[in-house]
Amino acid sequence: MERWIQSQQYRKWDLHCLKLQPLSPVPSDIEISRAQSPKAVDVLAKEIGLLTDEIEIYGQTKAKVRLSLLERLKDQPDGKYVLVAGITPTPLGEGKSTVTVGLVQALTAHLNINSFACLRQPSQGPTFGVKGGAAGGGYAQVIPMEEFNLHLTGDIHAITAANNLLAAAIDARILHENTQSDKSLYNRLVPVVNGMRGFSAIQLARLRRLGINKTDPETLTEEEISKFVRLDIDPSTITWQRVVDTNDRFLRKVTVGQANTEKGFVRQAQFDIAVASEIMAILALTTSLQDMKERLGKMVVANDKKGEPVTAEDLGVTGALAVLMKDAIKPTLMQTLEGTPVFVHAGPFANIAHGNSSVLADKIALKLVGEKGFVVTEAGFGADIGMEKFFNIKCRASGLVPSVVVLVATVRALKMHGGGCWKLLPIVFALLLVADGCCNLQKQIQITQLFGVPVVVALNVFKTDSPAEVDLVCKMAKESGAFDAVPCNHWSAGGRGAVKLAQAVEKAANQKNSFKYLYSLELPIVEKIRIIAQKVYGAQDIELSPTAQSQVDRYTQQGFGNLPICMAKTHLSLSHQPERKGVPTGFILPISDVRASIGAGFIYPLVGTMSTMPGLPTRPCFYDIDLDPITEQVKGLF
Amino acid sequence: MERWIQSQQYRKWDLHCLKLQPLSPVPSDIEISRAQSPKAVDVLAKEIGLLTDEIEIYGQTKAKVRLSLLERLKDQPDGKYVLVAGITPTPLGEGKSTVTVGLVQALTAHLNINSFACLRQPSQGPTFGVKGGAAGGGYAQVIPMEEFNLHLTGDIHAITAANNLLAAAIDARILHENTQSDKSLYNRLVPVVNGMRGFSAIQLARLRRLGINKTDPETLTEEEISKFVRLDIDPSTITWQRVVDTNDRFLRKVTVGQANTEKGFVRQAQFDIAVASEIMAILALTTSLQDMKERLGKMVVANDKKGEPVTAEDLGVTGALAVLMKDAIKPTLMQTLEGTPVFVHAGPFANIAHGNSSVLADKIALKLVGEKGFVVTEAGFGADIGMEKFFNIKCRASGLVPSVVVLVATVRALKMHGGGCWKLLPIVFALLLVADGCCNLQKQIQITQLFGVPVVVALNVFKTDSPAEVDLVCKMAKESGAFDAVPCNHWSAGGRGAVKLAQAVEKAANQKNSFKYLYSLELPIVEKIRIIAQKVYGAQDIELSPTAQSQVDRYTQQGFGNLPICMAKTHLSLSHQPERKGVPTGFILPISDVRASIGAGFIYPLVGTMSTMPGLPTRPCFYDIDLDPITEQVKGLF
Repeated sequence: MERWIQSQQYRKWDLHCLKLQPLSPVPSDIEISRAQSPKAVDVLAKEIGLLTDEIEIYGQTKAKVRLSLLERLKDQPDGKYVLVAGITPTPLGEGKSTVTVGLVQALTAHLNINSFACLRQPSQGPTFGVKGGAAGGGYAQVIPMEEFNLHLTGDIHAITAANNLLAAAIDARILHENTQSDKSLYNRLVPVVNGMRGFSAIQLARLRRLGINKTDPETLTEEEISKFVRLDIDPSTITWQRVVDTNDRFLRKVTVGQANTEKGFVRQAQFDIAVASEIMAILALTTSLQDMKERLGKMVVANDKKGEPVTAEDLGVTGALAVLMKDAIKPTLMQTLEGTPVFVHAGPFANIAHGNSSVLADKIALKLVGEKGFVVTEAGFGADIGMEKFFNIKCRASGLVPSVVVLVATVRALKMHGGGCWKLLPIVFALLLVADGCCNLQKQIQITQLFGVPVVVALNVFKTDSPAEVDLVCKMAKESGAFDAVPCNHWSAGGRGAVKLAQAVEKAANQKNSFKYLYSLELPIVEKIRIIAQKVYGAQDIELSPTAQSQVDRYTQQGFGNLPICMAKTHLSLSHQPERKGVPTGFILPISDVRASIGAGFIYPLVGTMSTMPGLPTRPCFYDIDLDPITEQVKGLF
Repeated sequence: MERWIQSQQYRKWDLHCLKLQPLSPVPSDIEISRAQSPKAVDVLAKEIGLLTDEIEIYGQTKAKVRLSLLERLKDQPDGKYVLVAGITPTPLGEGKSTVTVGLVQALTAHLNINSFACLRQPSQGPTFGVKGGAAGGGYAQVIPMEEFNLHLTGDIHAITAANNLLAAAIDARILHENTQSDKSLYNRLVPVVNGMRGFSAIQLARLRRLGINKTDPETLTEEEISKFVRLDIDPSTITWQRVVDTNDRFLRKVTVGQANTEKGFVRQAQFDIAVASEIMAILALTTSLQDMKERLGKMVVANDKKGEPVTAEDLGVTGALAVLMKDAIKPTLMQTLEGTPVFVHAGPFANIAHGNSSVLADKIALKLVGEKGFVVTEAGFGADIGMEKFFNIKCRASGLVPSVVVLVATVRALKMHGGGCWKLLPIVFALLLVADGCCNLQKQIQITQLFGVPVVVALNVFKTDSPAEVDLVCKMAKESGAFDAVPCNHWSAGGRGAVKLAQAVEKAANQKNSFKYLYSLELPIVEKIRIIAQKVYGAQDIELSPTAQSQVDRYTQQGFGNLPICMAKTHLSLSHQPERKGVPTGFILPISDVRASIGAGFIYPLVGTMSTMPGLPTRPCFYDIDLDPITEQVKGLF
């Protein structure tokens, strides 16, 4: 009864916000994070309408939220759905996470509107390598930032475990098939246990796929046994790689199987960083436990010697992968510096995958904020990549319709697009540079408009920006069709510094919205790639290498032609050449190879080579990271 | 004030035990586990005297316990400390975990005595490979068993992350040193930041170790700079391996660094299973955060080209490792099927490491049970290995004195030691076989007596054992000096089936106890090895290979001669030959190599080759593992 009532009513949260007293100069991220005492996460959960049995507490500041909530609140209308995207960034990024966090701090702590930020979980590798943390920054952060940046609730570790179990299964299976007769394989795969012999559920499923409609192991013909026991994997076609969540450059290319016990079945392979695993992309796109299990089973790991795809399901490992991922599927609840709710969930690579946080976190948050509330989620890289994939891949998977795009820009990046170096500050020419660089902003606004969603430009203000520069950018943005353009100071001032942005977003969300996808899935793969290249990147045309063309043919023939496209392209230029800033034109986009993540559900064309394993520099940031053994405080994480 | 009172008083727990209604035949482990509803872990924590701020809840059934409790209860006397060890086992094990759990269920749920079981966290690899779960079995289990066997609270994942960060740092450092001048290295290691140049804390520590007492980077001479920037690691001496928590046999021997970006610095390496990491051994032996950090820093990963040890501290990574391990150091609280408390913490390899659960879990549990209570902990493999290391390594690290040893035997294993095969049951000769096999039990009792601790034999009864066999074993055990010998039926009956064992253990704990170590640390390494070989294994003598001898010389010269010894020997025989059952005599124990875990604090001689990476069989148990997407229940984990 109580549940029924709770499922029906929309309510404005009665949220106790945490007070901020920003210091100047702004201290380091970890100092700011540590100076604020977060609310107990069970208190926060109650404030936003979660029931006791819908959360699983992990320590004092993190909780997983159960998917059962989606069933309870299924009749509640969704809130407004806001995407934070960016212009073509500098190598350091332009502060999309900071805007995302600042915006919800403004909405909820200052305008008293229900709102949720949905962020990606960062890879632990870069935390100890070059980049440092990813919880926002300054006075717009998720706290405690060290929890956010370290193990969190173990989701990436679960992905690593699942990914590597599948990898181990592939090589072990090849070895066993190569060293045993059909009969011996069959006796081992379908053993007599307590006098009985039977197929397991996953083996029966494989028999059905092979067209063998038998359930008694004693009745298979020799030919059927051979078909059943031999996956006949062609080792040269294996696309499934092992992963670690560490920046370990020496694992970029390795030879495995060199111990005597592996009887000479050596092969060259590679390790990727854990977040590049297809399982991460699946976690980000899945809509339920059942859907995740199906996607895990469908993952293609190699071809057999006849060219047919071999899947995780063929290897018998679907159930085990789902078991390893059963907790990871639940989003993790944390809070901003001002005590407003945040989901951290999934963080797929933004080039070989779609670079967006999870569909499930967004869906749950949209129910929790209610009809008049806001969910702010973020897409990786510039709008040409992260936003395009958000619309064409993530929104397709979720069925959700975005209300507003917030496009993040900085004067620093616009100067670079105008032909300058952002590290130097040629004061005299600054305004000219900014004006020239606004072409990139204009182009990204136009890209957003392709999808029929209103766009608000958020100019992330740095202390080195002049008022004239800020005004110029806002003026040019509005002239280019942005619904509004607002300078933001959340980094130095917290939510208070993003109140104008929040007001602009609220207004934009009430605009007419004619959201549409960029291409139809029914188009041929090559045509879909061409649409993205021409309409989004501004390419003259595309050019496929022979390898790429033969892969397209193969995937089409295997029945995967109707999947959306996930471009793997540099994020540092609209083109494929990172040094071409501004708005390059007249280029032919070269597609060197085409790959597929069948479980995640997309085809990914490679535009150039993508590194899937970062390295450690001469002085990794771990030199500054320390733990005080008395206070248990983490030092040096920035 | 309340805390002061709580810190002073001993109290018998007012524990709500869970009722058991054992079925016959006994269902599968997962069915039994699932049929019981565990108490909420915060309720259990309160029942056993933990304060609210001393626990960190992880979901409904797991909680981490903070080390601050040790300070609060430092004046409370410890409870009785019971070790569960075994005779030389069959490949399937004789049920030590089951006895451990059954014993505490009996003590607390049936005799109303405070008690705690301390168990090792199992590696996830074997869970999906051959062995299945390790949470006990039948009606003596830790629940929920799937939580116990899967990610738990992420400790092993944290170890993997820390281990692999160090591994990546080693290879990256070699690459950077090989491709840069002293000056370039120095500029990168000690960069100018905001116009300032300074050493980080860990760099200053390295300077002090090098005898360079300077703090201003501008004042180092060229020679000092060279000494500082070059670790000069000899790649052929690297002993630090990467790890994964997966049975991945193709990683037993690999070549790394084959990508062009690594500029030809390829080398052969290996991956171990995560629990074989020295960091796991450290987690199990450490006594505080400060101590753990020091041990992590002291880990030797290679020698430099002059033969001097290179440590994690030299690589600048100590603080980062401590940060990664800051939560793993807290033991995880769970419960038995009858609702009594259990700590699950650490699970080092039982051959290349010491195979015992953590010192910290035991210490905390000894305070929580109070003076009249019992803490039951378990040692891996047979008493000749696990127990010997428990006494000589773990008790030395903790300073704790054990009260009783419970020695687990099965009729099945004794028959094997009598020369039979336990798979066959030659009914007529059974008693004779058992009588012959008791020699192994007698020998293990004698080994226990070397340490001056009373021993109770627990005979784990199987339904195939005859009453005459059971009586014979108990009689022979008592004749051999056991304080008592008791048949146990906890597997089929729960704690009720181990009440007699619990009563015998309680009596034995009140016996005179003259605990002593087997050897003095001051003896030369070779002498310590000889004492273990002769007194424990019954060897005639030992024989060191030239490699082993030179390693002994090197470690002695490096100042590591005073560490205890951790023998890496097969557990399937008292000798080095697995097929020699019973009590082998007259053998010379061959020491093929000698290695060291300096951070964990032991020297480990290799007796033969030890596999540190299990493999997947033709039909791994993941074929039966599945997740019901509706009920979220795990199936097929046994």
